[in-house]
Amino acid sequence: MDAGAHADRAALLRAFDAGARPALARVISIVENERAGFRDLLTALHPRLGRAHRIGITGPPGAGKSTLTAALVRLYRERDERVAVVAVDPTSPFTGGALLGDRIRMGEIALDPGVFIRSMATRGSLGGLALSTREVSDVLDAFGFDRVIVETVGVGQSELDIAAAADTTVVIVVPESGDSVQAMKAGLMEASDLFVVNKSDRPGAERMARELSQMLHLRLGRALRNVPAHHGVDHSRMADRLKQGPPAATPPEERPAWEIPVLQTVAETGQGVPGMLDALDRHRAWLEASGERGRRRRSRMADRVREEVDRRLRRRAWVEGRGDAVLQSALDDLEHGRVTPYDVAARIAGDAAEALSQEPEIPPSG
Amino acid sequence: MDAGAHADRAALLRAFDAGARPALARVISIVENERAGFRDLLTALHPRLGRAHRIGITGPPGAGKSTLTAALVRLYRERDERVAVVAVDPTSPFTGGALLGDRIRMGEIALDPGVFIRSMATRGSLGGLALSTREVSDVLDAFGFDRVIVETVGVGQSELDIAAAADTTVVIVVPESGDSVQAMKAGLMEASDLFVVNKSDRPGAERMARELSQMLHLRLGRALRNVPAHHGVDHSRMADRLKQGPPAATPPEERPAWEIPVLQTVAETGQGVPGMLDALDRHRAWLEASGERGRRRRSRMADRVREEVDRRLRRRAWVEGRGDAVLQSALDDLEHGRVTPYDVAARIAGDAAEALSQEPEIPPSG
Repeated sequence: MDAGAHADRAALLRAFDAGARPALARVISIVENERAGFRDLLTALHPRLGRAHRIGITGPPGAGKSTLTAALVRLYRERDERVAVVAVDPTSPFTGGALLGDRIRMGEIALDPGVFIRSMATRGSLGGLALSTREVSDVLDAFGFDRVIVETVGVGQSELDIAAAADTTVVIVVPESGDSVQAMKAGLMEASDLFVVNKSDRPGAERMARELSQMLHLRLGRALRNVPAHHGVDHSRMADRLKQGPPAATPPEERPAWEIPVLQTVAETGQGVPGMLDALDRHRAWLEASGERGRRRRSRMADRVREEVDRRLRRRAWVEGRGDAVLQSALDDLEHGRVTPYDVAARIAGDAAEALSQEPEIPPSG
Repeated sequence: MDAGAHADRAALLRAFDAGARPALARVISIVENERAGFRDLLTALHPRLGRAHRIGITGPPGAGKSTLTAALVRLYRERDERVAVVAVDPTSPFTGGALLGDRIRMGEIALDPGVFIRSMATRGSLGGLALSTREVSDVLDAFGFDRVIVETVGVGQSELDIAAAADTTVVIVVPESGDSVQAMKAGLMEASDLFVVNKSDRPGAERMARELSQMLHLRLGRALRNVPAHHGVDHSRMADRLKQGPPAATPPEERPAWEIPVLQTVAETGQGVPGMLDALDRHRAWLEASGERGRRRRSRMADRVREEVDRRLRRRAWVEGRGDAVLQSALDDLEHGRVTPYDVAARIAGDAAEALSQEPEIPPSG
């Protein structure tokens, strides 16, 4: 990074610290698109993290997540808290329109200067959407928002992973979700801190809530889950070791347990939303009191290191290196069976490694 | 690889070629778990690929995918074709029980020596579940199965990606899936070659089929999709270039188009399943006649190279390298903010790159 770029970055960070919205937007854009200097920015912001309460909200399409989020935001605003909403759509780069719809549905709150709403649907970054989402959440945390709500549609593992990177993970269902919830129950149980049956003025809401409560009593929930969010890699033994982590002040059996609540809401009318707000506050207090916040932080740090290692290696092969050119020139040989994908991959990986190992030191900019 | 291991591998491949089921199971196990020598095996099998018709089947939980797959398998067996079924559950490592249930539900076909059924739910490989599934499909193709059916539950992007790596991708819905399909329509349209409304004896089946057909007329379907399955990386410009690929024998506008059919079935009674079999045959014939099979093959080869590069780099950092040890020793510093995840990641990536670049040549074994 030359002196001019360095001065630019310092000015950007000063504006960011002064609370300037354009600076926030620019930092998010640099981070989300992994543009030059993104690692420097994230490294500079790193010491400021940890103040915001990060809330992940997921659930099947049509569960009313956006309406519920908007209702929640209104209540936080009544308490004069500043709230950021990150709406993530990992399902398709083509459904951007739906998110835009949500944004409009959020109506007046989008005009409130104490509220920041951002949609993310790109799959363009080499770190993947999950990592981008976490890094954008970092930026919002560092900017000073009291609550950072990450809302993601769907009930696949990737959607859960995104929501589960929060301090508090909320799964929203509707009375009609029976089949899907049944099929997903194990994964959902492991990932959630709070269940909400929305549209509870519809038939079957009571039964749905009761069934969820019963399932929860058969499981121990997130506290014991040993499947980290890291993409596709089983680091569970590692995660187990991490969980043993530093000696706890109180032995595990004396720590207060978190009983996962099952709430009922009608987001359209606001019914039940104050109770949801209360449960979120209680969960946050429990995280602190139990020491779980520290454990989750430690585990998230480890995940972040793994993701960043992978991204760094991939960027060297595909963005900074000649990977695409080598692949392109090998396509005919590949198609006619003269080489295998494994031969071509070995060459590209070897080139990337050589370039990375010849860097005199850690490069100063992303 | 020493001489003993080399002889073992040769013996394994001979048994595999002779059609021995234990050899097939062993090769799959080595590939799925990325055990020593897995790359050698895949490289050795590579020239034998391309005979099988690979069929991807996906859809929401409860759509009757397993019952429909079993019905399909029975019809293929009546034609004396050999069929392999790979049942993939990317949603959770905890729902293995459900897959076991499916396997039992497949009942008598599981006992037929012309049928092979394999469940995959592990997230343990460094290449991820999608890559493992494709490599296991390769093994089954090389073994000589006429059809390799990959069945995956869910409607998230990852599930679609797995199904979309097939020659023919089938999306199964039920009359009640309205909302989910609505939300997912863009992604589904792009990924599918065939829609099936199963449980069509229920109310709303006609309407569902009609709505799907109407949506399909508004889109051009998979032929034009430019979002490759590669995990999280936007190689779409690359994919565009690849699609231009070799000069086509006939210009695009003269190639026969594929009109995505919307079929109705009742898997429990077998109603509509022969029509589905027929549509699958027609799609396969179209792939050949249109030149689309070659284009998809080329695109899949490029995806495979990218995935293998990423896996090779990650394995060097985490499996063959000291990544976990470095991370472990940095955890306290990370927790107390003395280093950032970006510092630690730079060190691990640098170590991995150095080790990889110092390898005298491409290692002979996986």
